[in-house]
Parts: sequence; C-alpha cells; structure tokens
Amino acid sequence: MTQTQIEALQHMLRNRPLPDPAPGLAEQRRLFDAMRAATPLPDGTTTVDGRLGGVPVVFAQPPVVSPSALVVLFFHGGAYVLGSAAAGVSLAAGLAARAGGRGISVGYRLAPEHPFPAAVQDALAAYRALLDDGVPPSRIAVAGDSAGGGLAVAALVAARDAGLPLPSAAVVFSPWSDLTLSGASVTARADDDLVLTADVLRHGAADYLRSADPRSALASPGLAADLGGLPPLLIQVGSHEILLDDAIRLAARAAAFDVPVDLQIRPGLPHVFQRFTGTGQLDEADAAMDAAGDFVRRALAPALAATA
Amino acid sequence: MTQTQIEALQHMLRNRPLPDPAPGLAEQRRLFDAMRAATPLPDGTTTVDGRLGGVPVVFAQPPVVSPSALVVLFFHGGAYVLGSAAAGVSLAAGLAARAGGRGISVGYRLAPEHPFPAAVQDALAAYRALLDDGVPPSRIAVAGDSAGGGLAVAALVAARDAGLPLPSAAVVFSPWSDLTLSGASVTARADDDLVLTADVLRHGAADYLRSADPRSALASPGLAADLGGLPPLLIQVGSHEILLDDAIRLAARAAAFDVPVDLQIRPGLPHVFQRFTGTGQLDEADAAMDAAGDFVRRALAPALAATA
Repeated sequence: MTQTQIEALQHMLRNRPLPDPAPGLAEQRRLFDAMRAATPLPDGTTTVDGRLGGVPVVFAQPPVVSPSALVVLFFHGGAYVLGSAAAGVSLAAGLAARAGGRGISVGYRLAPEHPFPAAVQDALAAYRALLDDGVPPSRIAVAGDSAGGGLAVAALVAARDAGLPLPSAAVVFSPWSDLTLSGASVTARADDDLVLTADVLRHGAADYLRSADPRSALASPGLAADLGGLPPLLIQVGSHEILLDDAIRLAARAAAFDVPVDLQIRPGLPHVFQRFTGTGQLDEADAAMDAAGDFVRRALAPALAATA
Repeated sequence: MTQTQIEALQHMLRNRPLPDPAPGLAEQRRLFDAMRAATPLPDGTTTVDGRLGGVPVVFAQPPVVSPSALVVLFFHGGAYVLGSAAAGVSLAAGLAARAGGRGISVGYRLAPEHPFPAAVQDALAAYRALLDDGVPPSRIAVAGDSAGGGLAVAALVAARDAGLPLPSAAVVFSPWSDLTLSGASVTARADDDLVLTADVLRHGAADYLRSADPRSALASPGLAADLGGLPPLLIQVGSHEILLDDAIRLAARAAAFDVPVDLQIRPGLPHVFQRFTGTGQLDEADAAMDAAGDFVRRALAPALAATA
C-alpha cells in the first residue's frame, strides 16, 4: 500500500499546476503558508499566537499535557525567505503531541528583508526566553524542517557558544545545512526531486546571506560548524531529494563530533514528506512522525522521570 | 550512568592485557571465540549445532517461538579470518529473541584457507537452503557484525543477482564493507579505536582477497555494489571506530539505490559494542539490540500478520 501511496504522491507532485507567471515574493509566501496549512493539526490541539523573546510564535497545546511536560521548539522551512510561525505549527504540534508535550512554532525574521544572521538571532532569542521562563533545558527539544532544520542546528551551536545549557534532543526533517549547495545530490537527485530545485535554494541563499560567507558555521552548520556537545540528533530525509546529501553529511559531521545520531532515509519520498502526516495520503509520513516523537520522548525521558 | 559505563569500558579496553608475543592464527581464533562467548545468550535460549546448505551453523531457539516465526540469519565478524558459528550465536539469538523469532549463526569458511568468494558462497548457500526449507523470505532477516556485516550485504547482492527472492530486513553492526580501507575514519579515528587497527583489517583483507580486486562488489559492497532492491537496512556503529565511515558510506550508497536506511551512531562506543549486551556493563548495548529487534519486527510485521 505504501508504494502505491508513494507513486500517487509522485504523480500528484509531478502534475500539480505551477503558477504562471512566477509569483512575486508576497504571493510565494501566501502559497507556501497555504501549502503548509494543509497539514492538519493533531486532534484537539489548540493554538494561540504569542511572542517569545520578542519573536512571534504560535503555541500549540495538545488536549492533555501536564504543565511540566516537554516543549518542542520548532523552526519552519522556506529557504529562509518563506514561511511563518503559522506555517510550522502543524509539524510542531504533531511532533509535540507524539512526544507528549507542547509545541512552539517560531516565526523568525525572513530574508531578503532580514538577512543572516537575523534568523539565528531570533531562534536563539526564543530559546533563551524559554529558559528565562523557567523551562528546564532537559525538557526542551528543538526541531525544524528544511531551512528550519539547518536553523535548529545553528541555534544549538549559537546557544552553546553563548554559554547556555542545551536542549536534550534535536529533530530535523530534510535539513538544509549547506548553503554552498556542494552536496552531490544537488545534481544527482535533480530529476527525482519534485519539490525543490537548486535555483530556489540558490536564490534563498543569496537573499539570506547577502555578503556573508556561505561557509559561515551558523549559515551552513552541516558543512562548517563545530557540533561538539550537541544533544542527540534525529535526521529524517527522503531519498528523492536534492538535499539527501545535506542530511547524510550532517549525520557524518555530527558523528565526527561524537554527537549521538539517528539518520532515517526513506526511499522515493520528497522534501519534508512529513507534511503529509494526518492526511491519509502517506503512511510513511505518519510513521516518520511517530518515530520522531519516540525519539524525543526517549531522549527526554530521564528529565521527565525525574519530576513526574 | 551511561557515560560512566562508556568511560569504564574505554578504560577496560585500553588496559586489557594483549598477548605477547602475538599469537598464531589458531590461538587468535581461540581468543576471538572466547571473547564472543562472553556475550550471554538470552535467558532460556537453547542452541543446537547443525548444517544449512552444507554450511555449519548454530541454531538458537528462544523459549517460546511459534514454528512460523521469523528467522534471523546471522554472520559473525572476525575480519574474514576469525570467528565461527558459535562466536556469532549470542548476537544472533539476542536479535532473534527481541524480534520474536529464532536465530541461525552461520559458520562460513574462513581465510586464508578459503579465500574470497568462499564466504559469500557459504552465506548464499545457507540463505538458499532456508528458502528451500520453505521459510518465506518475507520472514527472514539477515544480520551480521563487522566483516559479517559486509558479508550480510554481499549475500543480499548475490541472492538478488541469483534471482532469489530477498529477505525483508537487514541489520549490520559496525559493518566492514570497504576492503580498500578508503574511509577517512581509518586514520581519523585510529587513536579513538580501542578494538581494531588498520593493520588487522589489512591482513584480513589480504588473506581473504588473495589476488581478487578489493573493489569487487561482493568483497566491498559498501564501496562498489549495486544495492538496488535491497530490503530495509539498519546500520549501527560506534563513533570511536576506524570503521565509522564504512557505516556512513554504506548508508549513503544504499540511499543512492533507494534502499530504506536507518543509521544509528553511538558516541564513544567501540567496534561491535552490541557484544556487551546482557552483561550489565553497557546500557547502550542493550538499547541498541532493542532498537535492532524493533527494526526487524517492524520490517517483518506485514508477513507475520498475514499468517498469524
């Protein structure tokens, strides 16, 4: 059944109508948020807009969660130029609900209006505010998809370098963690990737980086960052992605710094395939979210047991 | 606690007495089997020696397993020159017990007496005999550690090329799948690896290959084999291993052929750390075996549900 679903999904992606002419940035942002809004919230989850460290966020509260439960701090994708707290909330809530906690989707500032390192600053500000609110880092997981996956790793590096205690787990879906686009899959998987193109990433990187070095540790943590001391890291990726190698090389780099790493590669699946969770279209999306929830729950189990 | 265990294990490995002078091959084989015999069998498991396709094996039967349950066909490590069916039976049984089936540890022929491709021939003969016995491939998982991990992958490739139906899962612990030793970790992790040296592997490769090309697909499947069509693959490895890159590159190569891949990298741990399962010395070894058992159970669940 799953193979049938994968083929149906590939067919849908291959034949979806593309806007003509290419829309402007505002329209691209609207389309991106609409696409992400198609991922349903878990049953019974309520959301509320707010701010965290001055950064706009959406809080997602599953129906039954104890006040001391864990927190998933989530960073949406969109090549650093698209996306919003609202765009990330379903994945944040889906992961949080499975792990048994609440989700917070962070609406970090976007390029080109706010270039690097604005996104990292906002990610760090949101994390710092959680700590200032008294949430123990042992009960926090960070997560993100695509550019938000790279940003989640960059935020961990920035937090460590700022002397902050680190969260207890990190989960990234199809992370974009090399803004130089040096992965072999950028060309090797170009024909298979029905979602992303190297041009989209190149434009995003140019808008985000402006004059900054794409090899900066906080822009390309999978390529250039010291990852020492980071918490257990789960990386999920589809094999039909130009970013396949970003995931593999992030795993290799994290391992080189003795970070615990789980890498899950799912064949035939597109960029951020987890967004199909809850739609009934793709069992693999639900299974991946379940695995991610398990991962967070296990990584945070000692802290949760300590004061249950 | 786990970190304390890891440090105690590193201390033990660093300070263990090494034979002086270097023992001959027969004594090396005796010492290797004695080391592996220190891994306890799961409670209540009985073993019986036998043959499968003409190859000596040890069958491991957990206390309660239905006749139609799954089979884990296991290939021991030992650089293709050491090891035996007995040496592999505890890991075979440990994995089988967790997955809910029986284990078979294969005593394939060793080099230098029997060079490449004798080991692959024996692995394939054992697998073929299982099929001939009427075990559905959907209820078979192959597994192996170190050289046996590479051999498990080679056996899958050989089985596919022979037109046989393939097993439904593969699990490899610290696989040695590049006999050219081209992984960067062979030097980068030389000081961290307290179990293996490049010299040991070079000698094993020379004895095994004789005049064969180390880039042969069935000798170095992680480097050179077409891995298309292989079943879901779980790879576990410690980060303190010269074979760390063999694991990562095998994952990457399998992904390039659209094989489902899970890669689990555990920091600070030595080569085939799973052998400490059941000893109380290393919680990570038990957790890794649990994860491997889960993986097999999930991969084979459709087949087991079909005729439960």
